[in-house]
Formats: sequence, C-alpha cells, structure tokens
Amino acid sequence: MTPSFEIRLAKCGARVEVALDALLAARAGPGELARPARLLAAMRHAALGGGKRLRPFLVVETAAMLGARGARVLRAACAVECVHCYSLVHDDLPAMDDDDLRRGRPTAHKAFDEATAILAGDALLTLAFDIAAAPPTHPDPAIRADFTLGLARASGLGGMAGGQMLDLDAERHEGAFTRKHVELLQAMKTGALLRFSVEAGAILAGASAAERKALNEYGRALGAAFQIADDILDAEGDTVTLGKRAGKDAGRHKATLVGVSGIEGARAIRDEFVARAIRALDMFGDKAGVLAAAARFVAAREF
Amino acid sequence: MTPSFEIRLAKCGARVEVALDALLAARAGPGELARPARLLAAMRHAALGGGKRLRPFLVVETAAMLGARGARVLRAACAVECVHCYSLVHDDLPAMDDDDLRRGRPTAHKAFDEATAILAGDALLTLAFDIAAAPPTHPDPAIRADFTLGLARASGLGGMAGGQMLDLDAERHEGAFTRKHVELLQAMKTGALLRFSVEAGAILAGASAAERKALNEYGRALGAAFQIADDILDAEGDTVTLGKRAGKDAGRHKATLVGVSGIEGARAIRDEFVARAIRALDMFGDKAGVLAAAARFVAAREF
Repeated sequence: MTPSFEIRLAKCGARVEVALDALLAARAGPGELARPARLLAAMRHAALGGGKRLRPFLVVETAAMLGARGARVLRAACAVECVHCYSLVHDDLPAMDDDDLRRGRPTAHKAFDEATAILAGDALLTLAFDIAAAPPTHPDPAIRADFTLGLARASGLGGMAGGQMLDLDAERHEGAFTRKHVELLQAMKTGALLRFSVEAGAILAGASAAERKALNEYGRALGAAFQIADDILDAEGDTVTLGKRAGKDAGRHKATLVGVSGIEGARAIRDEFVARAIRALDMFGDKAGVLAAAARFVAAREF
Repeated sequence: MTPSFEIRLAKCGARVEVALDALLAARAGPGELARPARLLAAMRHAALGGGKRLRPFLVVETAAMLGARGARVLRAACAVECVHCYSLVHDDLPAMDDDDLRRGRPTAHKAFDEATAILAGDALLTLAFDIAAAPPTHPDPAIRADFTLGLARASGLGGMAGGQMLDLDAERHEGAFTRKHVELLQAMKTGALLRFSVEAGAILAGASAAERKALNEYGRALGAAFQIADDILDAEGDTVTLGKRAGKDAGRHKATLVGVSGIEGARAIRDEFVARAIRALDMFGDKAGVLAAAARFVAAREF
C-alpha cells in the first residue's frame, strides 16, 4: 500500500472516533429519559478505540468522490460503524463464536458480562437507526429514509444476521461445502454491510442510477475480496498479528474459501474480485483512485 | 371490560398476525440475498401466534381516532410489534431473565438454541426499521423518517434497552429502591415503547403539535399503569394464568412498585395513572372512547 492511502485511512478513522465519542456522550439526548452508565460504558468499549474503520472510510470516500463531504456524511459513516460494532459484540458471545479477545482487548462480555454485552449490541444496533433517521444526517428526509432502509436490509435476515446464521449452520454441518454456498454465506455475513457502505456514500451524494449500479458492483466485489483475505489471514496468521485467536476457522469447521479452494485457489479468487472491483470504477476515471486503492488494500491487509 | 373492547382488540390482533406472517414469508425481499430457514423459523416463533398485540392496537387506534387507517398503519404497527417481540426474545435469554416459558410456549432459545435466539432478536429489531423506513409504510418520507427516529429513541440506550439495563442493575443491587428509581426504570423498560406506540399513530396521521402533546401524556400514563399492573399480577398471579413463571420478581430482587409501595399502594398509584391517561384525552371528546377503554384495560388486565 502507498503510505498516502494508509494515512488517509487513519485520518478518517480518527474523525470517526471523535464523532462516535460524541454520539456516545453521557448526557441523554432528545427523547431519551437517561443513559444508564453501565450500558453506555459497554457500548463505548465496543465502539471506541479500535478498528481500521473500513466501512466508514468507504462511506466517506464514496460520498467525497461524488462531491458530498462534511459532518452529515460522517454521521452516516458512524451509523454503519455502529452496526458493525454491534455485530462484533454479538458474534463474540459465548453462545456464538465465544471469543475472549477482539482487537487485542477483552471482548464486551469479558470486560462486562454477557447480559450487558447483549444489551450493548442491541443498543448499538438501535443507535445506528437513530443516527440514520435523524435530521442532522441529511436535510432531505427521502435520503434519510433511503439510507435507513438500505442499512436495515444489509444488516438483517437477508443480509448480515442471516449470514451469521448460515455461518453457525455450517459449523454444525458435516461434510464439505460448495464454493457457491460459501460465497452466499460471505456475501451476506460480511459482504452486505461492506457493499452497503459504498452504496451509502452514493445515497448521501445523490448519485445517479448508473453511478449507483457501478458502485454496487464495486462494493460487492470489494466485500468478497475482503472476506477471502480474512479467510487466508486466519489460515496463515498468528494470534499476535490478529489481536484475536488465529486458526479458529479450521478448528471449527467454518465454511471458508480456503477450505473449499485451498490457499492458492483462494488467493486467485481474491485477486479476481479485486480486479473486478477496480474495473467497476471505470466510469469515474481518476476520481476513483482512493476507492481503487481501497480494493487493493482489503486484499493485501494484514489486520 | 366491555365485550366490545375485547372483540376490537382481538380483531386488531388477528390483522397484525396476518400482516406479520406476510412480512416473515420465506421468499427473500428486495435487497435481500436469501432468508436462511432456521433464522426465519426462530423469528416466526418469536413474532407469531401469541400476545394481545397491545402496542399495535395503540398504533392503529390512535391513528384511526385521527383519521388514518389501512395497510400503511398496520405496517407501522407491525414494526413496533417486531421491536417488542425482539425484546422478549433477548430478555428471556439465560444471561438475562432465563425464562423457559413465554405465552405458554417454549421461549426462543429453548425451542431453538441460544445463538439462534440472539440472532432472531437482532433480526426482528432490524426488520422493525426496515418496515419503518420502507415506502409502503407511508408515501411521505418525512413521516417515515420521523416514525423511524421515534422508534429508535424509544427502543435504545435512552429507552427500552436502557431500562432493561437498569432492571439488571437492580437485581445486583443490595437494599431498597426509591419510588423515583422504579418509575424511571419502568418508564424506560416498558413505558417508552408503549408511549411511542401512541405517538406512532399520531405521526402517521399527521397530528398537530397539541394533539401529539396530549397523546404523549396519555401514552406515558398508560405505560406506567401497564407496568404497575404487571408488578401486581406477578406478585398475585400464578404460573398457569400468566403462561410464564409467577412470583419471580420478589425471588430476584426486582425493582417493582409493589416492592416499594406494597400491593395496596401500587393499586392506588396504578389507578391514579389510569385517571391521568383518561384526562389527557379530554381534547378528543367522544372519539377517544377506545383509547380510554385501553387505559382501563391495561390496569385491569389478567394476562
């Protein structure tokens, strides 16, 4: 990766951190009766102080490419990140993946307790829709409703939550998976929210139908490349680099493309998706340099 | 209760059941990749076949009083009910209230498993916002955004989820509670969504600021009466009538108004709230008969 891309990503991450910190302030907002301290602390533990903030970056950079910038876009980016953070908290629970470490820190149910972690996830998911629907995110309610709807579709039964279900089903499953099944699972579990992060930027910037179509193709391919890179990382990485337990996929009969196609096969498929993502940006010309770099970045990542 | 009120409530419940059944159909909707069977089954288990549907009734009857009826209002009512059903699934989890029975049937984590129940709750919560933000709920995106925002505020950190946190905190707490603390807890845990159900009807019908203010007062008082009636029922009821375990509040150091004020004291406070709810309806005259009956109903309920 070029250093300038990494710097740009880090700067965006820092802005997201500041914005999330403000959204998770101790004082109750309009329409709220109180912000119970323990629940707020668990939400802050889950949402602050970590992560590359890739999804917010995709929201912000897609919107910027199309001419939309500033506090509104950052709020929308935070809404998407709240959904991502909630999903990590719930996925880490003992009844799910049972992980003690996340980004090198104790997971929410370890730092607090299981009940608090479940509630913190619930409240982060709810906060995402609070942010999405609130006027400061965009003055046009049609854009807010469109954004909210897309976020819900990407996150629910037919998207991320459904993908997590397929992932749990796979662990209980005996025998081999098909590539098609693994790709559906991954398109839902991690792909849907990554794809929507790109779409969100397009929605906020009032993109044309043609622009949205191209960006959807880009987001879909980027999401696929991201997840395959994650599978490869899990198969090859070590716990220190990852900040979470490595090698857990094979130990648990997870459905991964490394399992289906082997490491070399998975690398080839990953590279194919990166190329497809970059091709989808053709219509935007030089303006799409950052998004193209993002596609290369997710494939090369060691995080 | 007059038989006509009970019939009206039951008819509304039947319409809600049909609408929820359609929303939870097997076929993937627009923007969804698939609807994984096990997750859908758990969501259906949690959302269908039970409950008085009091919150949807409040949405529908408030809107009807102000002149709005039909499929749109019913969709909004279903969105509120999805939030309610998600909260029951998560509250019943082993890490929370650890209940095996709900409406006389096994709770979601008993009928399925814990991971599936967590995901089913997550996906029902997400579905609520999907329904709220989608065009068929109202043609005016400003109304959809307003409805979505209110639903999120009533459900999250500063509302229902925060109230559940205070409830769990109370169980760990040694010593007595103040009436003020119990009332805040209850206003958040059950009050916020009941109050919002009424407000939702007002939003959908395009109510004036004065109408919204009066209906907010009504909804707040009704919510308080509801929860006190629940405390009384738990202290006096038996498991067969309730379809869930009775007497569990005292056994667990729950913060209730019966605990703070005794049964007779709680009854008096409940009746005070019912009277306040009915007074708040003054400006609507005879049109408010059903809402007044609803306030008496929640206080007299044996369910």
